[in-house]
Parts: sequence; C-alpha cells; structure tokens
Amino acid sequence: MIIIGELINGSRKAIKAAIEGRDAEYIADLARRQEEAGADYIDCNPGTVGEQEMEDLTWLVETVQAATEAPISLDTPNGDALEAALAVYEQEERPLINSITLESERLEQFLPIVTGNEVGMVALALDDAGMPSGPGEREDTALRLVEKLTEEGIAEDNIFVDPVITPLSTDPTCNQSILSAIGAIREGAPDVHITCGLSNISYGLPNRALLNCTFLAQAVVFGLDSAILDPLDEDLMQTVFAAEALAGRDEWCADYITAYREGKLG
Amino acid sequence: MIIIGELINGSRKAIKAAIEGRDAEYIADLARRQEEAGADYIDCNPGTVGEQEMEDLTWLVETVQAATEAPISLDTPNGDALEAALAVYEQEERPLINSITLESERLEQFLPIVTGNEVGMVALALDDAGMPSGPGEREDTALRLVEKLTEEGIAEDNIFVDPVITPLSTDPTCNQSILSAIGAIREGAPDVHITCGLSNISYGLPNRALLNCTFLAQAVVFGLDSAILDPLDEDLMQTVFAAEALAGRDEWCADYITAYREGKLG
Repeated sequence: MIIIGELINGSRKAIKAAIEGRDAEYIADLARRQEEAGADYIDCNPGTVGEQEMEDLTWLVETVQAATEAPISLDTPNGDALEAALAVYEQEERPLINSITLESERLEQFLPIVTGNEVGMVALALDDAGMPSGPGEREDTALRLVEKLTEEGIAEDNIFVDPVITPLSTDPTCNQSILSAIGAIREGAPDVHITCGLSNISYGLPNRALLNCTFLAQAVVFGLDSAILDPLDEDLMQTVFAAEALAGRDEWCADYITAYREGKLG
Repeated sequence: MIIIGELINGSRKAIKAAIEGRDAEYIADLARRQEEAGADYIDCNPGTVGEQEMEDLTWLVETVQAATEAPISLDTPNGDALEAALAVYEQEERPLINSITLESERLEQFLPIVTGNEVGMVALALDDAGMPSGPGEREDTALRLVEKLTEEGIAEDNIFVDPVITPLSTDPTCNQSILSAIGAIREGAPDVHITCGLSNISYGLPNRALLNCTFLAQAVVFGLDSAILDPLDEDLMQTVFAAEALAGRDEWCADYITAYREGKLG
C-alpha cells in the first residue's frame, strides 16, 4: 500500500498558521512523524491561491525536503505554483503531482508539466461534466483519463487513479459505485495505482475513524493499492496491514507478522 | 446483520467447567450479556459427545431460555441431542440447527429433523469430499445444499448458508475464494442468509481482533448478512454498523447514527 500522508494541508487551522508564520519546525516535525508512521509520500497543500500559493508551496517543499527523505506530493490546481515547486524539488524519488483531471483547462495546463518532468501523478476521475454521479461514470472517466495519459507516453506505474470519493452521508449508495469503479479500473488498467482521499467517505457522519477503517478494508479487496490519509491514525494503519494480508497481497502474512513484532499492530 | 453469539461453547475452558458443574448462573449471565450486546441468537455447543451431549445440550437450552428471550442456535452434530433439545425448546422464535451439511450421513440424519420442525438452519458448504479447497468449490457445494433443502420445502429465509471459513494462516489466498463464494451464493440464492464462523479467518495469526474486523467489513460488501461471533467484542460490533452502512443496507445511515447516539460506537 502506497500511503500519501495528508496532514500538511492549509485547510487545517494549525497548518494555515504554521504556513503564514513560516514555522518550519512545526511543518518539518509533521513531515517526519508521517514518514516514521509509514507515509511513502508527504502531501503538501498550501490552501492559498495565486502568487501566495506559489510562495507557500515552494516554502513547504523546501521545508519538507530538509526534514525527510520521502518524496512529496505537490497538491495544487495551480500550474504556476507547480512549476515553481518542481524547480526547487530535490528529493531522490520523483514527486507526485496532485492532481491532473480530464477537465479541459486543467488538462491543457498540466499535460506539458507531467510529460516534461519525471513525475508521478494523481489522476482524478473528473471531466468537464463535473463530479461523477451515476454508476459507471467514475470508471468511465478514470479509464478515459488513463488512456489519454498513456497515449502521451506516461507509464501506468506513474498514474495514481483517484475515483473521487463522495460522502456516504450525501448518497447512501455511493460506496457500491465507488467499490465497483475501483474493481473496473483495476481490471481495465491493471498496472496503474488506485488511490483516494479516504476520509471523504465519512464526511458528515459520527465516528469517522470507524467508517474510514471499514471503507479501507473494503476498497483494498477491490484493488485500491494507495490512499491519501492520516498516517498518524494508528487504527487506520493497522487496517492497512490486515486488509493487504486478507487481499492476498502479503505472502504468508509476512508483513503483517513483522508489523506485529515491531509493535505496530497495538 | 443477524448475530449468532458464539460464547457458550464447551471448547472454552470456563464454559466446560460451568457445564460440568451445572453452573446455571454463569451460563445465564453469558446468555444475557450476549443478548444485550446485540446477539439475535445464542449459540449453545456443549462440546461433549453421546449421551452426555444430549443431557448437556438440554440443560444449556433450559438454562438459556430461563435467562433470555433470544432464540437459540443448537450447535451439535448429534441428531439425538438435537431431538432432545428441540423437545424442551420453548422460546417464542424458532431455533437454528447448527448445522446441516451435504455429507450423506449428516444429511440423512438431519433432513427429517429440519423438515419435521419449525426451525432455521446453518447449512455448511461441506459434502463427502470434505473441506472446500479450490476456487468455486464453496459456492458449488453451498448452492447444491440450498437446492436440496428448498426441494424439501424449506424456505430460503430459514437457510443460513455457511461457506466454511478456513484460516488465512494456512492458505494466503483463501479470503479471495471465500469472498467470491459469498458473492456467488448471494447471486445464486438471493433470499438465503449467509453466515460464517467469523474468527476462523484469523486462527494462528496475531491480533486476531483486527483481522476479524477487517474480514467482516469485506464480507458484508459481498453479501454476508449474518455471522457467528463474539458479540461482546465491541470493535467487531461497531464494524457491523459501519459495514452495513457502507454496504447500502442502512438507509441514510439511520441505524449507524442511532447506534452512535446510544453510545454503541465508542
């Protein structure tokens, strides 16, 4: 499971303050703790706009790469901010661009960036028609985007398809559509990664942690092999090990047993 | 989700002692606590044999029905013990017979009992060939057993198919076979219940509770609507609510939200 640690996000109050105050130690500590907890990428989302976003994202990248060896997920819809961040990026492993979509404007702006640089990318199942709603729409949009990207010469291993998780609270049947979309994407494009903003599923409901774990367990069986989540949530990280073992992706449960011995399973 | 509370089982040391010592208060208390925790049936398995089992099962049934209103799951491969237990059974709701199989001897002995009495039954996917091993075997055996039972006039609502859970520790791919069997049974016989001895999945592995929750989350999506489990395991019971909400079987998450308000979700 490829974990993208989500905690450095300017929509969170403490992060917003740390970015505004240029509190590098706070950001560095959060990056380090996510990496130690098992994050493979550290997501950086300044949550600002325009010129400010460019400066903030660049500062976040510099701060995180001074603190950890983990590659960074550059989380912005702003092409200029992205280019500025890529210009200062120095980690050994390629960054992720979060995210490209089939929306005409975004695609036009991002395609040159993702083809011109050594990057991976989150490929969100969105097109000009907006959020996926009916069954079949997610996988249709996702697979069209994968086709577009691979036609441009991008390797499937660099594509992290995100089927767009909508809250269960707004649509009680959305999870069936989401899981069957994950299954269809896994079948249609076996070598892409499938990721998602996991906690969106539980938005607006109580005990979100419980729903997040339960959803993760289910999605892994259908083919999810990555997630954007809070790696400091120990229950969730434990569920990753159990779900992968149950999905047959952990031969003889070796990783599960190792995690247990290392005290990671509580 | 129809919960069959598993704790009154003579293979557990304390229960064995309570049965041997005829400690009615111990058994009654355990029956009550399981019912309060959400068990729809109280399983009674004396874990003895022959004449002794007949006496023990009868005593267990009398003890449990003096303590709770929950119907009882009569858990024995012994037809004589079953008939003796049915003779003293007085709960308002019909009991479950746990279990009938396609094994010739068991079928011959149990068919007259399940057709001659108002009972539900756990229908285990076993035939004379023994434990299911390869993919497709579970659902094949299960659906043949369902066909046999319905031909005998038994309503699908009285059948609780058990696909036979084998430990992940002995076969790292068993969960995929199990989940696809559950899906195939749900499709082939939409109105039967599908149950299982849940904790078998985690036998031999550390942190069994974590694997049990994760497996439950997955199996519910494929069509599991009952389980034989420890209803005093709060994490597991919480996962039941979350999994049913995610599976679209809890309209607008009403049961989930109610459970939360009642303090059942921690």
